[in-house]
Amino acid sequence: MLKTPYLLFLGDAPDPLAAKVAQGIKDWRPEHALGQLRLEGCQADMRLPDMTIAEAVEQGARTLVIGVANRGGVISERWLDVLEQAMAAGMDIASGLHNLLTDEPRLVDAAARHQVALFDVRVPQVSYPIGDGKKRTGKRCLPVGTDCSVGKMYTALAIDKALKARNVPSDFRATGQTGILVTGQGVPLDAVVADFMAGAVEWLSPDNTPEHWDIIEGQGSLYHPSFSGVTMALIHGGQPDALVLCHEPTRTHMRGLPHYELPTLEQLMAVALPLARIVNPACQVIGVSVNTAAFSDEEATAYLEELEARMKMPCVDPFRHGAARLAEALLAC
Amino acid sequence: MLKTPYLLFLGDAPDPLAAKVAQGIKDWRPEHALGQLRLEGCQADMRLPDMTIAEAVEQGARTLVIGVANRGGVISERWLDVLEQAMAAGMDIASGLHNLLTDEPRLVDAAARHQVALFDVRVPQVSYPIGDGKKRTGKRCLPVGTDCSVGKMYTALAIDKALKARNVPSDFRATGQTGILVTGQGVPLDAVVADFMAGAVEWLSPDNTPEHWDIIEGQGSLYHPSFSGVTMALIHGGQPDALVLCHEPTRTHMRGLPHYELPTLEQLMAVALPLARIVNPACQVIGVSVNTAAFSDEEATAYLEELEARMKMPCVDPFRHGAARLAEALLAC
Repeated sequence: MLKTPYLLFLGDAPDPLAAKVAQGIKDWRPEHALGQLRLEGCQADMRLPDMTIAEAVEQGARTLVIGVANRGGVISERWLDVLEQAMAAGMDIASGLHNLLTDEPRLVDAAARHQVALFDVRVPQVSYPIGDGKKRTGKRCLPVGTDCSVGKMYTALAIDKALKARNVPSDFRATGQTGILVTGQGVPLDAVVADFMAGAVEWLSPDNTPEHWDIIEGQGSLYHPSFSGVTMALIHGGQPDALVLCHEPTRTHMRGLPHYELPTLEQLMAVALPLARIVNPACQVIGVSVNTAAFSDEEATAYLEELEARMKMPCVDPFRHGAARLAEALLAC
Repeated sequence: MLKTPYLLFLGDAPDPLAAKVAQGIKDWRPEHALGQLRLEGCQADMRLPDMTIAEAVEQGARTLVIGVANRGGVISERWLDVLEQAMAAGMDIASGLHNLLTDEPRLVDAAARHQVALFDVRVPQVSYPIGDGKKRTGKRCLPVGTDCSVGKMYTALAIDKALKARNVPSDFRATGQTGILVTGQGVPLDAVVADFMAGAVEWLSPDNTPEHWDIIEGQGSLYHPSFSGVTMALIHGGQPDALVLCHEPTRTHMRGLPHYELPTLEQLMAVALPLARIVNPACQVIGVSVNTAAFSDEEATAYLEELEARMKMPCVDPFRHGAARLAEALLAC
């Protein structure tokens, strides 16, 4: 579990998109985002106070989070200097980068010297159990997608927020590196060894009070041949009471696989629901979350109305319209 | 890839079942099984020539395969003595034990000293790619089970043998430690990191000639919540043209999960076939393989006849009756 609040390191981000991890933290856990640290040439701005390391520590920052992708997969000397200063000032460092902090001798030495921690959130930190499929108390919702990268994390975070706004006890359960950095904890599921995937999801979403909802971050897609096994483990380890179907209507083929068409929402539902009912016979599909970023407001509204008439359940874009209707559908189920 | 032929080490097996790895090699790759080495008190016998290490090496043995489970998860001093002698005589050592050869300093030292190899077949030896789902040439068959441990490996080996008997080019593709020791190569799929599972199966079963069959060893079950993600990766990475449903009719609940009933064969087919058709729209279920060990000959025959009338496809116990009809069904598809 990462110590909060964070100083968000934006480095020399070449554009705002490169800082999407920082943006996620700012959007979803603003109470963790104390300030930002930008290097010369940084093209991203979270509209947070710019801080030096000394200022951040003085104001209580506990962890420097690398909120930006690095260029060319190398942690540059400029970055290393900053990270070392942060450790010298007593901060932990957290990163979701592919190349690991713990592979950088300078950082490992500095962490030992200053008795602070390096968190590579892509690396599992726990020996997860083998799943046992036992029914757990509390309720669970899992977004499943017609493809990878259609907005499952965003959907889960938005539902979690909408439940909390209704004073319903809820936790977003992160299963990927961005989600883990946003919430400070979770399971990097795609890095877990096959035999322990379902058990890791069970560990992530333990018994809870009857009215509590875990909103579990989805991964992959049952229709994406590269990663469907991870999705399967989420469905069986997650034991969802409710599935939300996630979709991006302008995508022409499965992400990275031009030889695969996307399934329809009906096809996804026909495959996902029987699988979910193996572990939770009461599971229902309660709504559809659509990423309508490619549409105008009018197009989005027209698309969602048509889809809702077809699917006969709430169909919303949580970014455009919020997740209130999905939260209401969850509470009704 | 393990060097053949093998000397099968049966150790101090407390009963024949403990030596099932050795039995598998003897049954399915007798040409690899040069002889056996038994310690005092060994209750297993492969009916192979008993050999000392010197005799085995003289007759050409290249690898000592640990064909027996160890007691209490410890590699005993007695075993270590034998393994060290085998290495001194120039043999590699291969093992599917949970506790690894490479965790034993004595063995690691001896391997370096004698320039031989230690193969822990539970540990992936390859950096597998991420799966790409591209259609591969050649044909593939995958057994899928109503549960774990219902005879999927046996079924695959029996089909492979029946195809070879018909001069059809065929390979058994091992995905578990016993299968890897039997054939000398394969992927220990349950130890592969989640993101690479499907890619590992694609790697295991590459492009081949159009008439060639890969018979891929199954793992887990779509209905077994602990391991269904592994099964899913096999279905999507394996890209099967043909599925064989595997079943053990007297089992009262899912293995290790008394709170889960077994699905019917129809339920398994209804879930598995649409998933397989995502990567291979031509995929068919060509038959059922039943483990009738708990039945008399008469009961088995009656059960299979009734099942065949119900399923309208060949239903056989390959152990009792051979896999000829499954092989014929494959060739017809």
